Amino acid sequence: MEKRNIEVCYSPALFPAYQVSSEHIVVIVDILRATTAITAAFDNGVKSIIPVASPKQAEEYKKQGFLVAAERDGIKLPFADFGNSPFNFQTEQVVGQTIAYSTTNGTQAIEMAKEAKKIAIAAFTNLSAMSGWIKKETGNVMILCAGWKNRFNLEDSVFAGALAEKLLEENDLFSTDDDATKASITLWKSAKNDLLQFAETTSHRHRLKEYMLDDVLPFCFSIDTSSSVPIINNGRIIAHNTKI
Amino acid sequence: MEKRNIEVCYSPALFPAYQVSSEHIVVIVDILRATTAITAAFDNGVKSIIPVASPKQAEEYKKQGFLVAAERDGIKLPFADFGNSPFNFQTEQVVGQTIAYSTTNGTQAIEMAKEAKKIAIAAFTNLSAMSGWIKKETGNVMILCAGWKNRFNLEDSVFAGALAEKLLEENDLFSTDDDATKASITLWKSAKNDLLQFAETTSHRHRLKEYMLDDVLPFCFSIDTSSSVPIINNGRIIAHNTKI
Repeated sequence: MEKRNIEVCYSPALFPAYQVSSEHIVVIVDILRATTAITAAFDNGVKSIIPVASPKQAEEYKKQGFLVAAERDGIKLPFADFGNSPFNFQTEQVVGQTIAYSTTNGTQAIEMAKEAKKIAIAAFTNLSAMSGWIKKETGNVMILCAGWKNRFNLEDSVFAGALAEKLLEENDLFSTDDDATKASITLWKSAKNDLLQFAETTSHRHRLKEYMLDDVLPFCFSIDTSSSVPIINNGRIIAHNTKI
Repeated sequence: MEKRNIEVCYSPALFPAYQVSSEHIVVIVDILRATTAITAAFDNGVKSIIPVASPKQAEEYKKQGFLVAAERDGIKLPFADFGNSPFNFQTEQVVGQTIAYSTTNGTQAIEMAKEAKKIAIAAFTNLSAMSGWIKKETGNVMILCAGWKNRFNLEDSVFAGALAEKLLEENDLFSTDDDATKASITLWKSAKNDLLQFAETTSHRHRLKEYMLDDVLPFCFSIDTSSSVPIINNGRIIAHNTKI
């Protein structure tokens, strides 16, 4: 049986350089903070999430009666119910709700990957749940890092290495000859023994600190605290085991 | 005194995400094989190199009487004097000559970086010569990896780590908060103790092997065999200490 191929794409700007087919699974990663927040939301009983590209669109959803998560530069926007932190999804208020979540990078990545068979949302928090789900699926795997303003970032690429390493443990199922995947695994190996210490070296950590949002770091770098596997279904994010 | 900033860009496709000003030094890297070949050419007495984007343009230069290096998929094109291997520049034939060198990635990278104050050509072979030259210059440093068809590649990014580490040894002169630079240094540290073993893991190595061009690997991963610092001057590549 042909092995399933693993590739890592470090930025949405690099995505056109790859061939992603209708047989691919694309796994979107934005550790600080969108994909970690989305995973947390499903752990806490959110029914579905509508990713929206701009605060303006988010405001439209607010007018239609949805709960809305939207911020700019770390500050909750006036019309929004809460900001984009994972902590905002840990309240009774969200249980059973559909939330419009404003994420420029995330929405762009989902749009880019739309030709894929399945699109999933991954974070350190759901690492094992995600790799377990991928193993049960079929098709090649593209791990798409949201990056930062189209640049490479450390936290997403290190996570890509963690996920790739976990998949490649099944060496009868998966293989790779992709340089970015190999680099990510090397980076992951250098970071994994002290992930919080590693987090301190990422440039995005400084941006969060500036807005006093760095309280999320221990949460965002905790492994396997979640059993959720969020996937895209008709433009919305739902838990993969949701009946639709 | 403000420290000089170091950044690494992993692909020409990511270059628009960075701000490169007229105060920047851009260092172009294409280890397998363009920048290694160009460095070798100057070691062997080549006067100047004209980088051309396509074999068609290379053929035009041939008609004008230039020596021409041009290949496709590793095969020397019929009109060309030689292919793109560094070994082709180690003959008497090239001494004092101007050579048109067909390199799609290299020409694209040079064109992209044209706003910079200076553009230089780096490889493992001229690592110390290059870092010595950069230290004597002024301005922020962008290390631009040619990559492979706009994708990340290991050999260019590991070299970027080697150069960044060497510059950062002068910690009163240089600093970085760039994630790609930090990742490159981690990759370089994992590779440097056995660079040829590392070379075996790069995906481009397999492509070269397919065309029996992998005899260049030991040469391309040899450190400090060259004292040349090729720089761009009016669209041509010359040695930085050439009188013009």
